[in-house]
Amino acid sequence: MSIADSFLKDFHHVATIGATEHRGVERQAATEKDRETRDWFVAFAKERGWRVDVDGVGNIFATVEFVPGAPAVLTGSHLDSQPRAGRFDGAYGVLASLHAAAEIERRVRAGELQPNYNLVVVDWFNEEGSRFAPSIMGSSVYTGLMDREEILAVRDLEGTSVREALDGIGYLGTGEGPRELAGYAEIHIEQGRILEREGIELGAVDSSWYTQKIDVEVLGEQSHTGATAMADRRDALVAAAQIILMARDICAEFPAESLVSSVGQMTVEPNSPIVVNSRVHLVADLRANDPAIVQQARDTLMERFQEVAKREDVEVVARDFDIRPNRYFPQEGIELSERVAKDLGFSIRRIQTMAGHDTVPLNTATPTVMLFVPSVDGVSHCEREFTKDEDMVNGLRGLTGVISEMLTGALDGVTYPGTAPEGSGSGSASGEGR
Amino acid sequence: MSIADSFLKDFHHVATIGATEHRGVERQAATEKDRETRDWFVAFAKERGWRVDVDGVGNIFATVEFVPGAPAVLTGSHLDSQPRAGRFDGAYGVLASLHAAAEIERRVRAGELQPNYNLVVVDWFNEEGSRFAPSIMGSSVYTGLMDREEILAVRDLEGTSVREALDGIGYLGTGEGPRELAGYAEIHIEQGRILEREGIELGAVDSSWYTQKIDVEVLGEQSHTGATAMADRRDALVAAAQIILMARDICAEFPAESLVSSVGQMTVEPNSPIVVNSRVHLVADLRANDPAIVQQARDTLMERFQEVAKREDVEVVARDFDIRPNRYFPQEGIELSERVAKDLGFSIRRIQTMAGHDTVPLNTATPTVMLFVPSVDGVSHCEREFTKDEDMVNGLRGLTGVISEMLTGALDGVTYPGTAPEGSGSGSASGEGR
Repeated sequence: MSIADSFLKDFHHVATIGATEHRGVERQAATEKDRETRDWFVAFAKERGWRVDVDGVGNIFATVEFVPGAPAVLTGSHLDSQPRAGRFDGAYGVLASLHAAAEIERRVRAGELQPNYNLVVVDWFNEEGSRFAPSIMGSSVYTGLMDREEILAVRDLEGTSVREALDGIGYLGTGEGPRELAGYAEIHIEQGRILEREGIELGAVDSSWYTQKIDVEVLGEQSHTGATAMADRRDALVAAAQIILMARDICAEFPAESLVSSVGQMTVEPNSPIVVNSRVHLVADLRANDPAIVQQARDTLMERFQEVAKREDVEVVARDFDIRPNRYFPQEGIELSERVAKDLGFSIRRIQTMAGHDTVPLNTATPTVMLFVPSVDGVSHCEREFTKDEDMVNGLRGLTGVISEMLTGALDGVTYPGTAPEGSGSGSASGEGR
Repeated sequence: MSIADSFLKDFHHVATIGATEHRGVERQAATEKDRETRDWFVAFAKERGWRVDVDGVGNIFATVEFVPGAPAVLTGSHLDSQPRAGRFDGAYGVLASLHAAAEIERRVRAGELQPNYNLVVVDWFNEEGSRFAPSIMGSSVYTGLMDREEILAVRDLEGTSVREALDGIGYLGTGEGPRELAGYAEIHIEQGRILEREGIELGAVDSSWYTQKIDVEVLGEQSHTGATAMADRRDALVAAAQIILMARDICAEFPAESLVSSVGQMTVEPNSPIVVNSRVHLVADLRANDPAIVQQARDTLMERFQEVAKREDVEVVARDFDIRPNRYFPQEGIELSERVAKDLGFSIRRIQTMAGHDTVPLNTATPTVMLFVPSVDGVSHCEREFTKDEDMVNGLRGLTGVISEMLTGALDGVTYPGTAPEGSGSGSASGEGR
C-alpha cells in the first residue's frame, strides 16, 4: 500500500471513533471517545516498536529513536475535539505526523536519510478547551507556561477535575516528553478560506492573531416570573442578553473583518421556567490581528457592561482572561517550508492564523514550523468541516519533507520565537485557533 | 404545647430540610431532599394512626377517617420547591393542613364537631415544575387533566424520567387518593404585596390570571468563534438574546403592570467558549388578568421572532405551551372564608392570583377554597421570601375553621368551578402561581 493510501485508510478509520450523525466527531478531552483514539495512537506506535510515554497531564509521546541520547524533533497535534465537531481539526495533524514518522523511519533504515536527532510524535492533551478551560492545556504544561498542579485541579461543568478525568481513562501518566528539543512541526487544516480561494496547496503560518477573552458574571436577584412586578425585577438574563448583543455589535464599529467577537459559553441560574434568573456566567471571545483593536473594543465593552448593570439594577463583574498576544514563527522555518514545497512542486503562501494551536506554546520552547492545508468553505468546529483527500496527502508530503530537513539540522541555531517582520499587520489572516 | 407552638415547631423543623445558606430551601421534585420532607409527612400521619396512600404519580394522601365510606374533604399543598427557593411556598400550606387536621381530629374525638365526611391531607407531587415541566403535575394527574403515563415519561435536563425519579426516592406508589370529594381547601403565602400593604390578615382568592408560555427553539449553525467571518455566522445565541429582550420589552407596550413576561429557562448548545452556538431553547412566560393582553403580546412576539430569524439567518420555531385561562373559585367558598374570618376576628379581602397552584385543577373536580396570608415585600421563589409566624398562625386558624365548616356540609351542592362575577377584571391581582 502506498504511503498516501495507508495514511488515508488510517485517517478515515480514526474519523469513525466518536462519529456523529453528519460525518463529524465528538471526542472531548479525556472522555471515553478520546480514550479510544488515544488507544489507537498507542497501538500504532507499539506495532512499529516505538517507545510510548504518557506524561503527568495526559500528553502521549511516541519516540522513534535514531541517535540514542540526542535531542528530539517533535511533531504532532491533538486528537480531542469540540462537541459535534469536524473530523479534521487536530486529528489530521496527528495522523499526518504518525505517517510522516513511519515514512522517515523507513528512509533512515534504508540509508536514504542520516538524522542527527530522534523523532517524537505527540498527541497533546485538551487543545480544544471545550470541556476543561482554558484550551491548549497539554502543550502549555509541557512548555512550562501553565502549572501542572493548577491544570489538574481544573473542573468541567459537571465538577470532574482534569486529574480525575485523565485517571478515569487511564492516561494520567508518570513518564515525560523529550527534555531537549531540536524543533517542532505541526500541520493543520486552515479553517479559513484563503488557500481554497487562491488555489494554493500549502500555507506557511507566519504569525497568530491577538486574542483575549472576557469572563462576565451577571448577578441579579431570583424572583417569581408571575408574581414580581416588572419594575421590581433584577433579571440577570435580561442584562446578559444585552451583553451578548454588545459583544457582537461592537465588530461593526471597526473596519470590516478586522475584529471578530462572540459569546460561546453561557450558564444560567437557577434556569427554571417560572423563576427570574439571578446569575448568568458567560465568556466573550475577541480577536484581531491588531492588538489595539482588541484593546479598544475591550475597553468600550467594559464601559457598556457597567451601563447595563446600572440600567438593569444588577451587578456585572467582567475580567480579562486568556490574553494571547500576536506570535511570530521563526523566518527560517517559513523559508524551509517554502523550499520543501518548491522541491515537491507545491504552491505555498505565507498566512496568519487567528489564534492558538499547540504551536504557540511550542514556539516559546523551540524553533517551530506550522503548515496549513486548504479547508472547503473555511468552516470548522462543525460537522461539515471538510478537506479533500488530495489536499491532506499533499500536506503529509510537505510535512515529511520539513521534518526530514529538521532532523538533519535545517533549523539548528535558529532563534525562537520569531519577530514581527517590517510592515507586518498587512497580511491576510485566516485559520483556526482556540 | 399550644396548637400554634406545635405548628411553628414543625414548620421551622421542616424548613431545615434542604436548607440553603440564606435561610431558603432547595427541594426540587423527587430529589433526595424532597424524599426527606415526604418521609417527615408520612411519619407525622402514621404517628397519629392516619392511613397513608401514595398514588402512581407520587401524591401522598393521609386520611383521617371519621365516617367510613363517606366522601372526603381534601386539604394540602406541596412540599417540593424551586432551586434556591423560599421555605414558605407550598410547605406552609402542607404544614397548616396537617396541623388543622390534627386539631379537627381532636375536636371530633372530644365531641365538639360532628363531620359528615372524612378528612384527607395531601402533598401534591411537583407543583413547581422546575425539574420536570410542566408545573402542577400531581394534582393535574389526580383530577384527570394530565395523563399519568405521559407525565411519568417526562424527563429532566439530565435525562431522568419522572418514573425513574419517583421510583428512586421510593414514592412511585400503587395506592390512590379519595375517589369522591366533598371539597378542597388550600392555604398559601400571597407572594404579592397587597395584604401586607393594606394590613389585612387573610385573602380569599376569587380568581387566577390568564397565563401562557411560549416555547422557542432557535437553530443556527455551529462555527469557530475565531476563524468564521462575522458576516458568515448564524449565531443562535445572538438571535436568542434579541428574543429575551423582546419578551421583556413588550410589557412596556401595555398599561403599567397589566402584563408580566420573562424568560426563565434556557439551554445553549454546544456551549463551548470558542464555538458559535447552533441551538438555543428557551421558555417565555406571559401573564395578565385580561386574556386579550396576553394574546396580543403573544401575536406581536411571534411576528417579531420571525423578523429576528430573517435578520440573523437562523430558524426560530416558537409554539404556544401551557395556556391557562382565568379560573374563578366558587362564590360560596369565598363567602365561607369571609364568614370564618369574621367569627375569628380577622380582616379579609378578595384577591386574585397570577396563576396556578394546585387549587386550579382541583377547582375543576370539587368546590375549592383558597386562602392567602401576607408575604413580606411580596417576594417569592427566592431565599428572602418571608412570612411572619403570627401571620402563619392566623392562617392556620382560618384554614381550620374553613375545613371544619366544609366537613359539616357548608359547600354541599355548590357548583364548580365558579364563574366570573359582573364587572370582573377590575380587582387587584397578586400572589404566586406557576
